[in-house]
Amino acid sequence: MEVLDTVIVGGGPAGFAAGIYAVRSGLRAIIIDAGSSMAMLSPWIENYPGFEGIAGSELLDKMRKQASEYIEIREFENVDQISKGGEIFIINSSKEDYRARSVIFATGASHKKLGIPGEDEFVGKGVSFCATCDGFFFKDKRVVVVGGGNNAATEAIYLVTLGADVSMMHRRDVLRAEARLQTALEEKGVNIIYETVVEEILGEVTVKSLSLKNVKTGSVSEMLVDGVFISIGEVPNSELARALGVDVDNTGYVKTDRYQRTNVPLVYAAGDLTGGFRQIITACSEGAISAKSAYKDLMNPYWV
Amino acid sequence: MEVLDTVIVGGGPAGFAAGIYAVRSGLRAIIIDAGSSMAMLSPWIENYPGFEGIAGSELLDKMRKQASEYIEIREFENVDQISKGGEIFIINSSKEDYRARSVIFATGASHKKLGIPGEDEFVGKGVSFCATCDGFFFKDKRVVVVGGGNNAATEAIYLVTLGADVSMMHRRDVLRAEARLQTALEEKGVNIIYETVVEEILGEVTVKSLSLKNVKTGSVSEMLVDGVFISIGEVPNSELARALGVDVDNTGYVKTDRYQRTNVPLVYAAGDLTGGFRQIITACSEGAISAKSAYKDLMNPYWV
Repeated sequence: MEVLDTVIVGGGPAGFAAGIYAVRSGLRAIIIDAGSSMAMLSPWIENYPGFEGIAGSELLDKMRKQASEYIEIREFENVDQISKGGEIFIINSSKEDYRARSVIFATGASHKKLGIPGEDEFVGKGVSFCATCDGFFFKDKRVVVVGGGNNAATEAIYLVTLGADVSMMHRRDVLRAEARLQTALEEKGVNIIYETVVEEILGEVTVKSLSLKNVKTGSVSEMLVDGVFISIGEVPNSELARALGVDVDNTGYVKTDRYQRTNVPLVYAAGDLTGGFRQIITACSEGAISAKSAYKDLMNPYWV
Repeated sequence: MEVLDTVIVGGGPAGFAAGIYAVRSGLRAIIIDAGSSMAMLSPWIENYPGFEGIAGSELLDKMRKQASEYIEIREFENVDQISKGGEIFIINSSKEDYRARSVIFATGASHKKLGIPGEDEFVGKGVSFCATCDGFFFKDKRVVVVGGGNNAATEAIYLVTLGADVSMMHRRDVLRAEARLQTALEEKGVNIIYETVVEEILGEVTVKSLSLKNVKTGSVSEMLVDGVFISIGEVPNSELARALGVDVDNTGYVKTDRYQRTNVPLVYAAGDLTGGFRQIITACSEGAISAKSAYKDLMNPYWV
């Protein structure tokens, strides 16, 4: 079995960028793409430099096609396990086994969902998981941020600063967000609805209202809104990396240095998996840098 | 005079990305664009994710147009000086004075040139200043890397690894590149031509040969080549930042943390000015991150 220079795990912006840069620098590499990048869920992207506006799925297709000019992409293939045998990484996928001298993890993260009617149906039509991505469409609109943690508070502050009419909705009677953020919410005039859950997201073409239930009294009500930002958490897909001994932070995101190196030699990570800003542009940049670092480490191990 | 939230100095990929993200997050900002981004010099770019192939000037135009949807771009305007008066930065340009609460430097870098006939004429037609950008076009081709420092050696190793037939040419009788890189050059079989300078780059549509002169003997000769990579140094455009007290490394590149913050509060830097990988994708990512950091620092000074 051939030993590749690097196997890139993940077919999102980080993985495709890593693939383009890896093969263009002379590395023998493949991408294993499970076909579940979160970029596909972004209905409309206006902040990726170079495109005034493009659907996430279309941008991802462009990147996939571009990468495939250089690198073999194993599509709809899941990696089950990665282990180390001597100096070689062994990658067992749902279809095949690979051997490689290095591994680039670009496995992304997943949004936690509410699991209620209307949530999937209205994604991109009023339902969003990212204020930085979609907030701009909700200036002067009425929106609800669902969640009570730091991320939800940050999303709410971002949206109110943009000029949206923002309420936060939390199922408990107290927010988990840190005190400073709670002060900021107060200063910015964000209305907080406690002990309430969304039972259904209603609309026609786009979101029109939320069906709510007070968890204490059991009373139900309807609230007119233009958008709902679901911010109840995100889970980095870091199991494979952790199993290889890669360090993660206390929320599970893989820790890297500026060059996308992890604590395990010849193992790199890029994109949402590493936390941070979690934008397509940053994922691509990290992917490119991870490939450059792999190139340097493999070709010239004495380089900085 | 209105006090802006941020002034972005520089109209290249980093500046435009910063502008898009700054205004979309609610900051009042402008871009001051001298119109001299190095991205314009890249004849053909294949490694910016999203575009299989695009001229640097066209990609830059797309980014400028996209940014201009959100932010005012002062074109062909040079910044002469930036100073601080109390809590406010005062930006004096060739046309106007501005006041801002923060500054994002995206002033880029400039390649040093040989200053010989044919150098400007054949840029993108065999003359290149960046192996990572253009090396892929020279697989199995004969190329010369001009220079004797670490960068030149790195470029030569990159090109030979890609499969090009590479010579290095240096005007002195010894390379400045560090010993380890010289060992790598030897291992990779890179031919080094000492005490020789290029006097002219010759060709028709593309580069065909170099007119050489031995600086010791004065003898002249002609060498057939497909490409010439000029790697005699790069100068970061960091004067304005340094005048504000921003720390630079020993080669003049601005030092930043991962969030693109410099040592001076509310002063950020992004793109080639900060050294590193110096790719359009990394510049854009750094621009976006710098805007996010400015947003956080201005809006919520107690956030991490």
